[in-house]
Amino acid sequence: MGVNEVESNRAENKVKIFALNSNRELASEIAGLLGCELGKVYVSNFSDGEIQLCVEESVRDSDVFIIQSTSDPVNEHIMELLVMIDALKRASARHINVIIPYFGYARQDRLARPREPITAKLVANLLEKAGATRVLSIDLHTDQMQGFFDIPMEHLTGIPVLSQYFKNKGLEDVVVVSPHHGSIRRARKLADILDVPLALVDERNPEEWETEIPNVIGNVKGKNAIIIDDLIDTGTTISMAAKALAENGAAGIYACCTHSVFTGKFREKIEWSPIKELVVTNTIQLPQEKNMQKVKTITVAPLLADAIDRIHNEKAVSPLFE
Amino acid sequence: MGVNEVESNRAENKVKIFALNSNRELASEIAGLLGCELGKVYVSNFSDGEIQLCVEESVRDSDVFIIQSTSDPVNEHIMELLVMIDALKRASARHINVIIPYFGYARQDRLARPREPITAKLVANLLEKAGATRVLSIDLHTDQMQGFFDIPMEHLTGIPVLSQYFKNKGLEDVVVVSPHHGSIRRARKLADILDVPLALVDERNPEEWETEIPNVIGNVKGKNAIIIDDLIDTGTTISMAAKALAENGAAGIYACCTHSVFTGKFREKIEWSPIKELVVTNTIQLPQEKNMQKVKTITVAPLLADAIDRIHNEKAVSPLFE
Amino acid sequence: MGVNEVESNRAENKVKIFALNSNRELASEIAGLLGCELGKVYVSNFSDGEIQLCVEESVRDSDVFIIQSTSDPVNEHIMELLVMIDALKRASARHINVIIPYFGYARQDRLARPREPITAKLVANLLEKAGATRVLSIDLHTDQMQGFFDIPMEHLTGIPVLSQYFKNKGLEDVVVVSPHHGSIRRARKLADILDVPLALVDERNPEEWETEIPNVIGNVKGKNAIIIDDLIDTGTTISMAAKALAENGAAGIYACCTHSVFTGKFREKIEWSPIKELVVTNTIQLPQEKNMQKVKTITVAPLLADAIDRIHNEKAVSPLFE
Amino acid sequence: MGVNEVESNRAENKVKIFALNSNRELASEIAGLLGCELGKVYVSNFSDGEIQLCVEESVRDSDVFIIQSTSDPVNEHIMELLVMIDALKRASARHINVIIPYFGYARQDRLARPREPITAKLVANLLEKAGATRVLSIDLHTDQMQGFFDIPMEHLTGIPVLSQYFKNKGLEDVVVVSPHHGSIRRARKLADILDVPLALVDERNPEEWETEIPNVIGNVKGKNAIIIDDLIDTGTTISMAAKALAENGAAGIYACCTHSVFTGKFREKIEWSPIKELVVTNTIQLPQEKNMQKVKTITVAPLLADAIDRIHNEKAVSPLFE
Amino acid sequence: MGVNEVESNRAENKVKIFALNSNRELASEIAGLLGCELGKVYVSNFSDGEIQLCVEESVRDSDVFIIQSTSDPVNEHIMELLVMIDALKRASARHINVIIPYFGYARQDRLARPREPITAKLVANLLEKAGATRVLSIDLHTDQMQGFFDIPMEHLTGIPVLSQYFKNKGLEDVVVVSPHHGSIRRARKLADILDVPLALVDERNPEEWETEIPNVIGNVKGKNAIIIDDLIDTGTTISMAAKALAENGAAGIYACCTHSVFTGKFREKIEWSPIKELVVTNTIQLPQEKNMQKVKTITVAPLLADAIDRIHNEKAVSPLFE
Amino acid sequence: MGVNEVESNRAENKVKIFALNSNRELASEIAGLLGCELGKVYVSNFSDGEIQLCVEESVRDSDVFIIQSTSDPVNEHIMELLVMIDALKRASARHINVIIPYFGYARQDRLARPREPITAKLVANLLEKAGATRVLSIDLHTDQMQGFFDIPMEHLTGIPVLSQYFKNKGLEDVVVVSPHHGSIRRARKLADILDVPLALVDERNPEEWETEIPNVIGNVKGKNAIIIDDLIDTGTTISMAAKALAENGAAGIYACCTHSVFTGKFREKIEWSPIKELVVTNTIQLPQEKNMQKVKTITVAPLLADAIDRIHNEKAVSPLFE
Repeated sequence: MGVNEVESNRAENKVKIFALNSNRELASEIAGLLGCELGKVYVSNFSDGEIQLCVEESVRDSDVFIIQSTSDPVNEHIMELLVMIDALKRASARHINVIIPYFGYARQDRLARPREPITAKLVANLLEKAGATRVLSIDLHTDQMQGFFDIPMEHLTGIPVLSQYFKNKGLEDVVVVSPHHGSIRRARKLADILDVPLALVDERNPEEWETEIPNVIGNVKGKNAIIIDDLIDTGTTISMAAKALAENGAAGIYACCTHSVFTGKFREKIEWSPIKELVVTNTIQLPQEKNMQKVKTITVAPLLADAIDRIHNEKAVSPLFE
Repeated sequence: MGVNEVESNRAENKVKIFALNSNRELASEIAGLLGCELGKVYVSNFSDGEIQLCVEESVRDSDVFIIQSTSDPVNEHIMELLVMIDALKRASARHINVIIPYFGYARQDRLARPREPITAKLVANLLEKAGATRVLSIDLHTDQMQGFFDIPMEHLTGIPVLSQYFKNKGLEDVVVVSPHHGSIRRARKLADILDVPLALVDERNPEEWETEIPNVIGNVKGKNAIIIDDLIDTGTTISMAAKALAENGAAGIYACCTHSVFTGKFREKIEWSPIKELVVTNTIQLPQEKNMQKVKTITVAPLLADAIDRIHNEKAVSPLFE
Repeated sequence: MGVNEVESNRAENKVKIFALNSNRELASEIAGLLGCELGKVYVSNFSDGEIQLCVEESVRDSDVFIIQSTSDPVNEHIMELLVMIDALKRASARHINVIIPYFGYARQDRLARPREPITAKLVANLLEKAGATRVLSIDLHTDQMQGFFDIPMEHLTGIPVLSQYFKNKGLEDVVVVSPHHGSIRRARKLADILDVPLALVDERNPEEWETEIPNVIGNVKGKNAIIIDDLIDTGTTISMAAKALAENGAAGIYACCTHSVFTGKFREKIEWSPIKELVVTNTIQLPQEKNMQKVKTITVAPLLADAIDRIHNEKAVSPLFE
Repeated sequence: MGVNEVESNRAENKVKIFALNSNRELASEIAGLLGCELGKVYVSNFSDGEIQLCVEESVRDSDVFIIQSTSDPVNEHIMELLVMIDALKRASARHINVIIPYFGYARQDRLARPREPITAKLVANLLEKAGATRVLSIDLHTDQMQGFFDIPMEHLTGIPVLSQYFKNKGLEDVVVVSPHHGSIRRARKLADILDVPLALVDERNPEEWETEIPNVIGNVKGKNAIIIDDLIDTGTTISMAAKALAENGAAGIYACCTHSVFTGKFREKIEWSPIKELVVTNTIQLPQEKNMQKVKTITVAPLLADAIDRIHNEKAVSPLFE
Repeated sequence: MGVNEVESNRAENKVKIFALNSNRELASEIAGLLGCELGKVYVSNFSDGEIQLCVEESVRDSDVFIIQSTSDPVNEHIMELLVMIDALKRASARHINVIIPYFGYARQDRLARPREPITAKLVANLLEKAGATRVLSIDLHTDQMQGFFDIPMEHLTGIPVLSQYFKNKGLEDVVVVSPHHGSIRRARKLADILDVPLALVDERNPEEWETEIPNVIGNVKGKNAIIIDDLIDTGTTISMAAKALAENGAAGIYACCTHSVFTGKFREKIEWSPIKELVVTNTIQLPQEKNMQKVKTITVAPLLADAIDRIHNEKAVSPLFE
Repeated sequence: MGVNEVESNRAENKVKIFALNSNRELASEIAGLLGCELGKVYVSNFSDGEIQLCVEESVRDSDVFIIQSTSDPVNEHIMELLVMIDALKRASARHINVIIPYFGYARQDRLARPREPITAKLVANLLEKAGATRVLSIDLHTDQMQGFFDIPMEHLTGIPVLSQYFKNKGLEDVVVVSPHHGSIRRARKLADILDVPLALVDERNPEEWETEIPNVIGNVKGKNAIIIDDLIDTGTTISMAAKALAENGAAGIYACCTHSVFTGKFREKIEWSPIKELVVTNTIQLPQEKNMQKVKTITVAPLLADAIDRIHNEKAVSPLFE
């Protein structure tokens, strides 16, 4: 036995990619693109609901990537992620890179009312405290969430992937529409890529929406409108926006978003809306029962595989931010 | 307006007790004993599963107590607690005292196998990071968990409450039995209070239990045996212990524990076991469907009310540790 | 000598308000409203530019408020503030409340390009590290900056003060205009208070502005337009917005903002623009030479005095967030 | 001069092993097994008792292992270790791995009485604060001490080394005995390895021991009993256990433990007890005057050398936990 | 039972003063001056050398002062102090004020050679990590040590106490002498108070001192010289300085220092030196056997009692720095 | 694409040296000596004075050195440095080594008066919080400042560079003079290197200096005096020292210091003083208008280039401390 014996082992360039329970298909696709196997980890629940987790291969001094969206069931997924990070830290992983394709709680990013939590910051703090050394995510609710972290935080965007789809489609006389005030920068960005004008749905009090169609600011008459948002949750906002566009004479109505949260009566709202096609990505793995004919899913696996390759090989990640 | 105007307001001695979703009945009972109302807090889930929480009264500079067991659904209850602490911290609460009658994940307190997490420590770290300034709990899986915290941590015990019940019952020729190696100090303590001898069920490999009755070390023949454990989960350990006692000629078999976790086939196991009566406390609020005729529940509300009173009024809590 | 001798002294309710170099007038006004004197602090520069600072009265166990905007010269003002906090911490102040009416660097709140700093978060970290225990500010560039802090952070708004001015003015047929995409929520809020419609100036590439008038989305023709922004810096954005409104037939053009940063050729841009009146607050103390006839300044002293009163007397601050 | 000149130097795999004052013999043995020299460090005391320490070779970017038991004089040994860690941190060591074969204060791991310290946690905190990046120890008082650390903590066990000795000895009709409640898991483990039954000495109040022999729970009559504990301090517990076993008819009485703390009247107690042979390891370096004929010492050097090799060469350490 | 019942108890102004093992006489004197009893704490050593400590009265929410010099045995005294702080923190003391009349390791305040520790900073870090909230000390080796702490650190001086003694003595034609370069500011201060000139002993390499008398810079001929230093350790420096003064014709030679460390052959060196009288304070409690006729001890108890009074009653401590 | 593809890239030994605004000439000289280019970074100010900074090449996993004196304008230079560190941290630099040839605020290293800041410690804290992983500086005001950091801090000295100059000059009958009490160790060191005697200017109250010449302690008559200090600021101290030396009959008067702070009326004071030549280094880049014929500047570039080479190539830096 000698301390220098397995020298070559040390110089080895060890990257390990682990999937937890939220996104196994996406993770497999990424591993396939990178030409490697997913790392072995046992994740389950004890009968009392506690998470039981065991990393089943050595990670000592490895450059580890965990892929886990904090999608519904969000608290389960967050705790799974924190428990995994704790296990990796205690097992002497060198870098613990956390890829969160969809970052749950990102909308709770400020005090909307007094004595609320800022849960998005809380989750950032918990990730750092558990031992994460880097975080990657896609299309956060606001860019400012980068500043919630003191570790490097790569904020990738799925807009190029979405815009490429519409470019290929070859629609004419297009207008990009922000379905509410908070998505206007995102809409501006898509409009820039497609080189088309912009409009805004001026929603006011969501409660009124059941009875009242919101205003549209900007010209959409006779145009092909593409609504863009970061996520679709219950579908209320986007379906009301689509109705408003229809009222204002839009010729064809399309929609896209990065994260298909899809809760509540989203199916009825989208099916019955004038939206012709809804394009989403696979940052959230949709269960079979949430599929809809109108919905087209595009993969972000190449984007994330490229990011892992760049991080592990110490190349700049910035080309993926554009 | 003047800075000294509401002077009297400041000197006021403000304590606020809040219940989250795990133990509303226990919390109400505690508030009743203390002669105060529970604080107002709205806790719910958005349709995508995210916790929505808002503290609905001012807590500025108050001495706040939160009552929340991290029982099943454990991850929901932990996140609820962390989110509540974050909200209180940002709302300028003076002290954030967290009462966790049953501390979930307490059994994951060491590396049983390589590359496991130490989730009990992780949860302790998360509570401190979120902003808790003191933690109280009852009958943790091991005493050593106190050392997982750097904030004051009061570890109360429900054994006096349980032993009082058996004292009142007036059983004769009693032996206290530890159903496995990990509960032997607890059994020793109950035996000391009741001034009776001790025996130990020497379980080995749990997998063999389906087919094999474990040994009993110590004399139980013809005696009234009281099995004691910190918690009962699936009921396998305690029912096998009861069978082993029956095989070894115990006259009457009783059992007690602080935490009624009660998962899986606990009902069949306990019903079909030779246990005559099982005494538990209300650290975990049992849903209606988990009730059993054999089970007797004793309240820990006076214990916790006394602890709150002592903490808020800056008296020593130590009498409650005995 | 005896340890209980000056008991009454201890019970005393000590609040101290200190002004540094940025906002002495505002601070005096606040102290006047609260009926107290400003605390004595010597702040100067040594001949080599280092800050020389000495707190000239005891602050032991006091509830201290520092008033300092991190306006131009921003780095001087930040360092002054950090040095003051360090002195107070070492002198055993009980609470160090930092009131930053205008928070410089707030616009650097995300990575606009790769390998930039997030200076707004850096400044938040520096304030916490130095020893601040609470921060108050007015109309931050984005609400999300609250999440940059882990200490309580009160985010007040000057919009009610500004809107009251326009209410009093009694303009008719008003439209509120967001001069760029980032201010649209702010504009929506003012429009709600005034109960009038909304429009948006759809600026694209600022470089093109010298030669090209941006589009206006929404109807402004014949209306009295009130442009609202968080701050006015060089005046380019607001003057271009005003020109665009004039091009689109606005009848009267007004503007308002909370922070009068006023740099570069702001004077020419505002003077030569079609803006009739520009309403600002005194979060930044304007030097004599930056005065303009078109500019009307409204004080935020009552807002801040009220906040100090509420914090010191442990009342909810939340009514000031609306 | 050029920054890339000594490239080969950098790629070099530098491990350095340093011994402080507690275990120089063990450290030399480990270094011998690893085929390297111990690093040069000067450790002494100034005339006023302050530790004087100087690392006498470069450790810049090295993977350093310090070997130091915190045995008696425990406070000297802890401070020596902390001072060494501080020196290495400031001298830019890359990893500071602290091997503590015997971890003093490990028994102070919970509040046995109110207002006691939890010194084991305090020491863990001090080690992390000083700059340790990993800790290794052998047979801690409880497994839960792993959770006192947030850095990786490898908990090795000497039980296989001890059991191998008894296997070689070839005793027949063996029972493993836990001399008190706290050692029962350890006894269960040894019994499993040797595949023999288990018994327990049911000590109650130590003060009574001078006059009263404790009960034995389980059958030891006519058997060769092997008592096992983590450590032997004054020898009271183990000698009373041996007497109880003799009273209960044990044929031969053997004992083993990992740590030979050996204080007070341990010599008389062990010599005069019915223990035939006591097997210990060299985690604590026994001074000449503590030697006894009954005591057999087994080395843990191969165990620790293997651990260092595995850590430095980034192989899994877990095979050493079994 | 009611949460507001013992209101009056809460408002009570609780200060507790505890002595550990280094300075029991000084602590008693301080308590006497303040008209209170010392708090009850049991501090001892287990037979293996571990510190056994238990605070024997409630300290919940109290303002606690610990009095402990980290004098020889320095490592014992430091660990005692850290263990006490840990116990107080876990017992919910409100403020943990640590009075360290003599701060051991203060001379190890920089890297004199490469790869040394900076033990003074290490000790400061350990005190903060354990939970101290304020530190007081007297005549540290350098003023810069205040900056080693981020908690308030009051640096008192014993020079006025020492100078008063010499003022009362009424010596004429006095010169104050710094016995080495490091004490020159201290000498300057005493010279200012006594309004007399200054001289400096220009020691070079201490090793040469056995054979060579150092130079004196400045005029001492025919004068009464008062040597001043922060501490006297082995007595080499001060006795050589005295010899140098004698060689240079000083008429009478006196010496004073705050801390009587007194190790090695201090007795011979001082006895055989031309020093007529040596004045020290009681920051270090001298054991009987270290007494000498030449040595006069002055108490710092009034200084420390005054400091405690000022801190507890929230008055400025600064008058005690002069 | 594959994770192992750019293996060779990873093994690459990447060092990057960046200059900020304080010392561009020195930085270029260092880069030249190391045979590399300075890294590309854009640093400027927005019109409102905020720093605008962007690192214009990838630094992912690089060993980065920043060169920036915190000289006048000191607050600008500190903020520039902190902002740069933040950018590098978020861009995933591996090591962030901060070279501060002149460390501003170093004189504010203790509480000279009550309720002052300890700004030198504050700046150390800010550097660590921002993300610096190592600091290098030259001739700090006191050695104790090393202990203000918990990261490795290399304290280089320019005295050998200065002494070499005087050795080459070949002056005879030299005395080294400390111009005030605080510089006496520095003077002792230069005197040791040159093997000449020492004298001290005994300044008392600086305010009196306008009217009164301070005493000189030690013999300077007919000698060539070399005054040494760490820095020259307004020039008052050194010019008064020179006058005092002239009064006391010094034959030739020379002066040297590491840092040419040069503020206020330094020019008149130095020109009109009896100093023949003043030797300084280029730790501060003198603007053209501060040049003087009497001043000779020596470069520290070789010293810093050597330090970078040693750090990057993991060799001991200690030879540069002597």
